[in-house]
Amino acid sequence: MASDTRDMLGRTGLTRVDKALSILLAHLGSPDPPVETVPLSLALDRVTAKAVLAPEDLPSHARSTMDGFAVQAADTFGATESMPGYLKIAGEVLMGEEPAFEIRRGSCARIATGGLLPAGADAVVMLENTIPVDETMVEIVRAVGAGTNLIARGEDIGKGCLALPAGHRLRPQDLGLLAGLGIRRVDVYGRISVGVLSTGDEIVPCTDTPPPGKIRDINQITLAGLISRAGARPNLYGIVSDQRDLFFQAVEKAAAENDIVLFSGGSSVGMRDLGEQAIASLGSILVHGVALKPGKPVIIGIAGTTPIFGLPGHPVSAMVCFDLFVTPAIRHLSGHHAGLDLPEPFVLARLARNINSAPGRRDLIRVRLHRNGQGWTAEPVLGKSGAITTLSHADGYFLIDEDSQGLTKDTEVKVILYL
Amino acid sequence: MASDTRDMLGRTGLTRVDKALSILLAHLGSPDPPVETVPLSLALDRVTAKAVLAPEDLPSHARSTMDGFAVQAADTFGATESMPGYLKIAGEVLMGEEPAFEIRRGSCARIATGGLLPAGADAVVMLENTIPVDETMVEIVRAVGAGTNLIARGEDIGKGCLALPAGHRLRPQDLGLLAGLGIRRVDVYGRISVGVLSTGDEIVPCTDTPPPGKIRDINQITLAGLISRAGARPNLYGIVSDQRDLFFQAVEKAAAENDIVLFSGGSSVGMRDLGEQAIASLGSILVHGVALKPGKPVIIGIAGTTPIFGLPGHPVSAMVCFDLFVTPAIRHLSGHHAGLDLPEPFVLARLARNINSAPGRRDLIRVRLHRNGQGWTAEPVLGKSGAITTLSHADGYFLIDEDSQGLTKDTEVKVILYL
Repeated sequence: MASDTRDMLGRTGLTRVDKALSILLAHLGSPDPPVETVPLSLALDRVTAKAVLAPEDLPSHARSTMDGFAVQAADTFGATESMPGYLKIAGEVLMGEEPAFEIRRGSCARIATGGLLPAGADAVVMLENTIPVDETMVEIVRAVGAGTNLIARGEDIGKGCLALPAGHRLRPQDLGLLAGLGIRRVDVYGRISVGVLSTGDEIVPCTDTPPPGKIRDINQITLAGLISRAGARPNLYGIVSDQRDLFFQAVEKAAAENDIVLFSGGSSVGMRDLGEQAIASLGSILVHGVALKPGKPVIIGIAGTTPIFGLPGHPVSAMVCFDLFVTPAIRHLSGHHAGLDLPEPFVLARLARNINSAPGRRDLIRVRLHRNGQGWTAEPVLGKSGAITTLSHADGYFLIDEDSQGLTKDTEVKVILYL
Repeated sequence: MASDTRDMLGRTGLTRVDKALSILLAHLGSPDPPVETVPLSLALDRVTAKAVLAPEDLPSHARSTMDGFAVQAADTFGATESMPGYLKIAGEVLMGEEPAFEIRRGSCARIATGGLLPAGADAVVMLENTIPVDETMVEIVRAVGAGTNLIARGEDIGKGCLALPAGHRLRPQDLGLLAGLGIRRVDVYGRISVGVLSTGDEIVPCTDTPPPGKIRDINQITLAGLISRAGARPNLYGIVSDQRDLFFQAVEKAAAENDIVLFSGGSSVGMRDLGEQAIASLGSILVHGVALKPGKPVIIGIAGTTPIFGLPGHPVSAMVCFDLFVTPAIRHLSGHHAGLDLPEPFVLARLARNINSAPGRRDLIRVRLHRNGQGWTAEPVLGKSGAITTLSHADGYFLIDEDSQGLTKDTEVKVILYL
C-alpha cells in the first residue's frame, strides 16, 4: 500500500484525511484496557468499563420541590382566590425526618422544599398560593393536580434503569448521579499508555543548550501534554538515534511496552524512509502521506494491535496529525465510545483575509480571534509549520475542505478553539 | 441590596444574570495567588504568573524547510526547465552538524529538511526542482527568491519578544514553545482553594444509606469535579449542620481557610434566610436571587476578599450557577485573565419541540443531541431541577435570553456541550 503513495511531488497518491482515518480505525482492535475499580473521588474523566444500573429508586421517597403545604390534590379542585378551599393543618414535615402523621381528606401539612411527602398526600400547594388563617387552618387559593410540586419516588431514575452506559467519560454530574445512588466505587478502564520517541541527529533534549546545527526537542513535551489531555498516559523515551538498527530497536521496544507508539523526526525523505521501514519491519504500513497541510508526511502503521504513528518533525504538523489521527485512536483504544459521535464545538468568525488552498488537499489554518462588534474576526496566523509560535499564538483553527480552492475575506468560518 | 430582592413570587426584584455577574466581578479583588516555579513537565494547564520573554532567537540559526540544495538565490534567477542553471556541489550539510564549507556564487550544497543553512546561502531549491548531472554538478530548473524554503534565525520568535503573556493558561503547544526556547521552569500561580459545604438536616454523606426523610449529598462530589476542571483545588468540608450557630461558624471557618466558599443547601425559604444571614454576618450580600431558571435562589456575597456563594440545593440549579458565576470568579482569582474574552464554543442544532420561557428570565435548557442527516437535533431533557439525571443524560444546554418568550420547534440553537 505504501509504494504507490511515494511521490517526490508529494501530491499524487496521498490519502485523503477522512480515508486515512477510516483505514486507521478499521485496523484498530477492540479496546482491552485493564479494568480498575476506583472511588468516585478519583473517577473524574475516567471511562466506565461497564454499564451502571441504578441499584435503587432515586429519590427513594417522594419529596416536595416547593415550600408550601402537602395536600390531597382533590381537596384543592376548584379553589380560587375568590372561592378558596380550607384545609386543617395536621402538622409540619420536619426536614430530614419521616412524618409521623398521614394526610387525610380535608387536611394538609406544612412542608419545605426537600421535605418528605407524608403518606396520603399526592401534591404540594406553593406557600404563595395559600393564605394563613390560624395555627390550625389554611386557605388554598389555587388548585393543584396530583403530582404537582413534588418529585416522585424513582422519578429521577428508577431501580434497574441505565444510569450510565459503558464507555462513558465521567463528568462532574455523572459522579453526582452515582453518589446520589449510593454507588461508592466505579469500574473504569485503566489509562492506556502512549510511547513517544523523538528522533533525528539534529535534535537535543530541551534541557540542553544545542550547538550550531542542532535544535531542542519541542515535540516530546507538546505530545505529552496532548496525550494527557486525550486521557492516556505519556511514556517518554527521549531522543532516539536515527541510525537504522538503533532506531528499529527503539521502536520495537516502545511497541512492546505501549498501546500506541508515536515517533516524530525530521521531515526529510531519508527520515521518512527510515520510519516507514521501521514500521514495515514490525507490522504493516496503513497510510504513508495524507493530503493535508500541514501534516502531509504523516505515516500510520500497525504492529500487531499497536498503532504506530510516524509524525512529521515540524511541531505544528505533529500537533495537527495528533489531533486528527492520534486522538481518535486513543479514544477508541481507551474504550471511550459513548458520545464519541458528538460534533466538535466551534466559534463562528469572519475571515480577515483571502486564503488560497489547493484543491484535493485539506488545509488547517491557525487563527487568532478578535472581537468585531457583536461578532468575531479570524486572523490567520502566518508562519511556517516549523514555527511553534504559530500554534502558541493561535486561539484555534479552521479547516478548508478538499473541494475548495480557498476562501475569500469575510467568509464565515467555523473555528475550533485550542483550549 | 438584599431586601428589595426578597419576594415570595420570586420574580420582581431578581437580578439579571449579566448584572449579577458584573456586580460579582466588580467586587473581586486583584488576584493574588502565591507564585510557584514548576518544571515544564508539571506546568500543563497552569496559569503563567509573569510574561515570558524569549531568552534567545528561535531558531538560533537559519534552517532548511525542504530537502534540496542550499544556494545563493541570485544564482537561480531565470532558471527554467528549458533554460536550467548549473551549480557546483560544494558539499552536503549533515544533519545536526555545522557545515564546514561556505556557499559562494555558482556553488550549492545538498541539504535535508531541518539542516542548518551553510554560510553564504540565502535560499533552498527543492529537490523536485533540480536534476542531477553528476556527483559534482546539479541542474536548477526553477528560480527561488532569497529566503525561500528556509526558516530564518529568530523567525519563529526573536530574542526579547513576548513568548507568552502573564495570566495565560499553558496548553501543550505553549509548553513546546518554552521547551524550544530552552526554558526549563516556569512561574505559575498556585491553585486557589475553594471550600465546599453542604448543609441541610435532610442530607447525609453519599457513602451512607439514608433513612426515610433523608437523601444523599450529590452536590459535594459534583462541585468538587467542577472546581477541579476550573483549575482550582476543592476543599471539602462535608455536611454542616443547618443550626444557626454551627452553620455560621462553619462558613466563617471556610471563608478564613479558602479563596472562595460555596455552600449548597435546601432551597427552602428558611435555608435561604440562614444562608443570607451567614454571609451578612461575615461581609455583605451582593446578589440574592437571579432571574434564571434553574438557579433562581442563588445568593452571592463577599466577606473581605472572599466571595461566598449560596448555591441552590438542587444539583441541577447548583451546577448551572457554578458555570455562570463560580467559574468566572475562579478564573479571575486564579489570575487567568489572558484569553478570557474568547467566546464559548458551541454546536448548532435544531430544536426538537417548542419551548416556552418567561420574559425577563434567562432559561437554561438541557438537551440531548441526535444526528439528523447532515445536522443535529436538540431534544430537551425534561425533568425537575432536583433530578440529577437531567444533567447526566444531557449532552449540553442552550440559553433562552431574557427578551424571549420561548422558541419554536426547528429553531436553530447554540448548544454548549457538557464536556
